[in-house]
This record gives sequence, C-alpha cells and structure tokens, in this order.
Amino acid sequence: MAHFADRLFAAIEKKGGPICVGIDPVLEKLPDVVREGRGAVDAIEVFCSRVLELVGDRAAMVKFQSACFERYFSEGLACLHRLIGRARELDVMVILDAKRGDIGSSAAHYAAGCLADGEAFGGAFGQGGPDALTVNGYFGLDGLAPFMKVGASEGKGLFALVRTSNPGGDAIQSLKLTDGRSVAEAMGGVVAEIGSGAEYEGECGYSLLGAVVGATKSEDAAALREIMKGQIFLVPGFGAQGAGADDVRACFDGDGRGALVTASRSITYAYGEPVVKEWEASVKKAVEEMQDEIAAILG
Amino acid sequence: MAHFADRLFAAIEKKGGPICVGIDPVLEKLPDVVREGRGAVDAIEVFCSRVLELVGDRAAMVKFQSACFERYFSEGLACLHRLIGRARELDVMVILDAKRGDIGSSAAHYAAGCLADGEAFGGAFGQGGPDALTVNGYFGLDGLAPFMKVGASEGKGLFALVRTSNPGGDAIQSLKLTDGRSVAEAMGGVVAEIGSGAEYEGECGYSLLGAVVGATKSEDAAALREIMKGQIFLVPGFGAQGAGADDVRACFDGDGRGALVTASRSITYAYGEPVVKEWEASVKKAVEEMQDEIAAILG
Repeated sequence: MAHFADRLFAAIEKKGGPICVGIDPVLEKLPDVVREGRGAVDAIEVFCSRVLELVGDRAAMVKFQSACFERYFSEGLACLHRLIGRARELDVMVILDAKRGDIGSSAAHYAAGCLADGEAFGGAFGQGGPDALTVNGYFGLDGLAPFMKVGASEGKGLFALVRTSNPGGDAIQSLKLTDGRSVAEAMGGVVAEIGSGAEYEGECGYSLLGAVVGATKSEDAAALREIMKGQIFLVPGFGAQGAGADDVRACFDGDGRGALVTASRSITYAYGEPVVKEWEASVKKAVEEMQDEIAAILG
Repeated sequence: MAHFADRLFAAIEKKGGPICVGIDPVLEKLPDVVREGRGAVDAIEVFCSRVLELVGDRAAMVKFQSACFERYFSEGLACLHRLIGRARELDVMVILDAKRGDIGSSAAHYAAGCLADGEAFGGAFGQGGPDALTVNGYFGLDGLAPFMKVGASEGKGLFALVRTSNPGGDAIQSLKLTDGRSVAEAMGGVVAEIGSGAEYEGECGYSLLGAVVGATKSEDAAALREIMKGQIFLVPGFGAQGAGADDVRACFDGDGRGALVTASRSITYAYGEPVVKEWEASVKKAVEEMQDEIAAILG
C-alpha cells in the first residue's frame, strides 16, 4: 500500500477538502426512527452505516471513537470492525480513535489489534483495517516504535496526542519547561524527532506519524506547526467544542496543507433532537457547510 | 461495594503481601502442552485460567494486559471478560491494564466499557467487572473525572500513568519545569490534587486514584511518594524488566503500605521454554519467591 500521508493527500484532493467526520455514536442521541425496534448495537450500526453513506463523498477520512463501541464490550467491538470495513468499501479512509499506548511489547500487541489489517486473525476488519490510529506519546520512542513499524510496512498512519482540545489538558500540557517550551511543545518535539527519517516520510514530505492538536488551542497551533513541520495535524474541537474556521488556520502549512479538521457531533447530530423524522438531509448539509467553511480559509 | 483502597488493603493482608501478577498472554510463549490442539484464543484462555488458580492464593490482584487480548479482536475481548469473571470467582481482585484516556464524554464511555460492572449490558464481565483500570492523565481533570465518578460509586480504583517503566518515557517524563519539578512530578501533583477529597478517600487514608510508578525508576520514587501521599502506587518493572526488591522500597510509605508491586513475565513464564511439560509448579514457585522478596524488604 502507498504511504499514509500520500494516500490522505490524494483523498483530500478527491473529496474536496481536509475534512474528517468523527463518528461517536451515543444511543440516546440517535433518531427515534433508527432506534425503534432495534437493540442498542444494531441501532448504532444502522445509524453509522447510513452516516458513512451520507458523508462519504465529502469526508477525506472518518474517525471512529472506539470508546463508544467498547462500552458494548465484544459485541460493540465486532460492530466497530464491520463499520471500518464498510467505510473502506465506500472508499472512505478511517482513523480508529482509540488513543492506545503502552511500553514496547504491549504496544506491539495494540498495533496488531488496532492498526494491522487483521488478515492473520481472520480479517476481522475486512478491507485492510483502519488507515490510522491515535496514540499516546507519553511513553516516548519505545512506546511508539511498534506502531511506527506497522505504519511503515502497511502504509498506515498515527496521530500522537500533543495538544488535546479539552480545558483540563492545560494542567499538564501548558506547563513551562526550563528551556521556555511548554510540555505540549516538548511532546511535539519528541513526535517530530521520532517521525523523521526517509522510511517514515511520504512523497508529499509528511511523516506517517502525525499529531493531535486541538482547534480550541489555536493560540498554541502556530508554535506547534513550526516544531512539527513534518507532521500532519489531526485537529479536533471544530463545531460542538466551540472552535471555528479561524481557529484552525494556523494548523495548516503555508500551502494550505498538512492538517485534517475533524468534527463529530456538529455533523452526525446536525438534525438536533431524536424525534426528528427526516434526519439524513441535515447530516449531509452539515458536512457540506463544514467543507465550505474550511475551503474559505484555505482560499 | 466498599472503597477500592480498603478492599485492596484487606486483600494484601489476606494474601500475605502487596503482590500483583501481570497476565500478558503471548501465544508463542505458552507451554506446548497448552497450545496443542487448541486455537489461539482458546489456548490463551486455558493458560490464563490455570495461572489464576496457581497464583490466586498469593496475589492480592492480577493485572490483565488488554493489548494481548485486543489483538484477537472481539473474540479476544470476550475471552478477557470471561477471565475477569473467573478471577473474581477465585476471590482475586483485578486490574484491567488498558491505559485508557480521552476527553470527558469519551472517557465516560470508556469508564462504562472498562470499569463499570457491565450489568447494564448483560453483565459481560460477570461478578462485577474489574476492580481497577489504568488510565492516562495527559488530559487532566476533565479526562479523569468520568472514571473517578464510576470509581466512587462502584468501589473501584484507577491508576494514572505518572512514571512509566520503559527507557523511552524519559524523553517526556524527565524534562524539567521552571519550578524545578520534572514532568512526571507535575503529573504526580495533578493526580494527587484530582484524587484528594473525602469522596475519594477510603478509611485507610488512600484515594481510589492511584499512580503507575515504574520500579525501574527507583531514583524518582521517593520524590513521587512525597508528592502523592494519598496515592497507591502500582509498580511495574519488577522481574523481567530488571528491577529488584531494593528498587521498590521507596514506593511504600513509612508503614510499608501504599504500593502494589507487579510482575508479569517472570511469574507467568517462569517455566522458561514452551517445550516444558511440567510448567505449573514453576509459576507457583515464582509467585511465592516474589512474595518472599517483597516481604523481606518490608520487614
């Protein structure tokens, strides 16, 4: 398979913009018409499958929130894996947002279970598995290396947590080091270093190791962009968490590349309350509007 | 259910020491006699179930490495959940070592899927689910709060990653802040603050929010113990990762309490090569020896 960053850039071109739709299914928020007569996991699968069809022609990637499926234990995990296969059938690239991390040997097991194509275990994912995984950088190089190995050999990508979009993250991530950097900037430096090297870089110049940089932390984005020139930024927080198009501008490079803006609730629950009968058009409209907003700031 | 810390202290008393056995099953390392005629997940289940019986009278807790099960997808997860139920039948407390973390709403889903008792979803765990979960503190308070809520209401515990046992962790965790602390110490401070308060403290004085502090980082343990007076330390790295009894001493408080030492490979693979026929006695002997070693340093 081609390099992850090159595949992503091709998808952005094809779909018309650097848009990712986050799929975080919560039973109580699904339209009543979807829930009626169905068990929880079945309703979630029907809903997510339809969302994939609705956003698939605009979304360069979709991002599945693993927690929303794991809460239904093995039944939820099997559903997640079927949906990953469905996304790939629809020609939509997939991020598994599982934020995994551990020391080396356990990281290798996570890489096998969350990123590899799963053929060795009966092809659980179908269609080659997720294209990328979110990971925790707190373990440093030997925690990330096993994921990088799978990424390099299978054309897959990683996004390490650098600057999270929630308010509480400041307690650690905003602390200042003796060299003047914040902890998030130091994490960015570690990620940039680990992600560098010809074996990890695509023809586009970007590494298979990217970074999560919250849109709600736009005041930090410019410095992080400078530190991580080779990292694609996965930018959550757009929409429901309060960030707008202006907040994401600094996450892109000078050519308007190198970032993927992701929105979840503002797209998938764009219909509002579950009593709505015609929910599908709202979802479709929301992703189109988000694409227009991002296109406007990229000129 | 009683408070997690009080339950753990009672288990330590009953089992004869602050010992945790890590269960990280890797197919290639299992005894041939266990693997023969069995599929991967079946062999893992038979092996782990027998290990639980062998160590159950000595181990205050067992720690299941989620990655080793997740690599077998939903089939592996179902196996993990059966084993958690089996441990509880044997009166062995369980840590699910899944190192989960996310922003608030997703953290709530992880808390439901990885820590709550699962009754609402058909009792997937059996016997009330795991007693504790490892979590990532990088998200700060709003990332940890949903886990704390479940912990407080269900008598369960958490261990936040503070100082990991692998060499690569130094790249972030050893960095120095302007106030003289390391990043790991700052993380410890955040954990101590989040874990404080009467609603989180047991009668023993310890919080339901503990900390992971690697035994291989013994030079940092004393300062972290001082910063986190209310945190039980989960101490990995003993045995196969190279740390010995002397390295864990500083993780305990002045009364020889407040830490749980965990070893994985040195116990569960104590028999050596898979060709061995009589593997069970070695496992039993290894946990007894570890208990004696820890007892010696605690006087």
